[in-house]
Amino acid sequence: MDERLKRQLDFALEIDKEKNILRQTHLSGHGRRENDAEHAWHMAIMAYLFKEYSNEPVDISKVMLMCLIHDIVEIDAGDTYAYDDAGLKTQKAREDAAKERIFSLLPDEQKEELVKLFDEFEEYQTPESKFAHAMDNLQPLMLNNSNGGGDWKEHKVTAEQVYGRQGKTQLGSERTYK
Amino acid sequence: MDERLKRQLDFALEIDKEKNILRQTHLSGHGRRENDAEHAWHMAIMAYLFKEYSNEPVDISKVMLMCLIHDIVEIDAGDTYAYDDAGLKTQKAREDAAKERIFSLLPDEQKEELVKLFDEFEEYQTPESKFAHAMDNLQPLMLNNSNGGGDWKEHKVTAEQVYGRQGKTQLGSERTYK
Repeated sequence: MDERLKRQLDFALEIDKEKNILRQTHLSGHGRRENDAEHAWHMAIMAYLFKEYSNEPVDISKVMLMCLIHDIVEIDAGDTYAYDDAGLKTQKAREDAAKERIFSLLPDEQKEELVKLFDEFEEYQTPESKFAHAMDNLQPLMLNNSNGGGDWKEHKVTAEQVYGRQGKTQLGSERTYK
Repeated sequence: MDERLKRQLDFALEIDKEKNILRQTHLSGHGRRENDAEHAWHMAIMAYLFKEYSNEPVDISKVMLMCLIHDIVEIDAGDTYAYDDAGLKTQKAREDAAKERIFSLLPDEQKEELVKLFDEFEEYQTPESKFAHAMDNLQPLMLNNSNGGGDWKEHKVTAEQVYGRQGKTQLGSERTYK
């Protein structure tokens, strides 16, 4: 097998570990905790189906790929709960180290492409990034709502925190926020 | 909330159930069984990264969406193991009924679009369908190989059956088959 294909397969196998990173959100029907891979799959399909609600026109295939890869760094850095103030302070440094290690498994130009897309998501500036973030927020909101808000109760998250966070959703999609 | 958005959200919530459909494949590191949503996420990323190995040029965003939705019918129909001859006989009827129920939750034109894409995948004729099938086969092959072939041993699958099935992978991607 040539070196390029080997690196691509190494990366593909490495990201299998994302299925072990648990989030605070529970599956509908008061199920078990969701993992990052499931969350990313759900977000990508929702992005496609809800694309008419983006505030600005988006390249939807770029949004979908962004959704699919946006949590890969959590393989090393872990999931940081959106309402965990202490964890949020060290999140960037942990995720930067993870980004370097994991994407370096790929051939150089594929590493560069995915890192660029990951950074674009994180920087929250482009229409694609804003809409992907809207889906990143809407997906757990939908699940948690279906479960009567249990995840927020468990973590004593206040209504003010939820609305503060969902204000960001509005940046990507006014309609789904209402 | 208007009727259209409500239908889109109903579908989005319904497909959450795909996370409970277990496959025969185990996660790398001799982990637990994989579910359909994780498998679809993995396949979609692999399709993007391995697109250079498709035998024919493909619309990669179409392939990715195809990967993401190709197992939704298993919410009702269950996972049919590729080497389960009895299950394979009733698979089509079970999946057709599931397809009608689940995609009908969507607004009509989105139902029509996704059903068309699902049927295209099933019919195995277009370059996109062939390449998506190649990823559908390569992804569990990669995981199972990383685990020393444990899934096949458990089900007493013979080398002949594996190679027979992987012959189809070759239709979508000669390179990754070798």
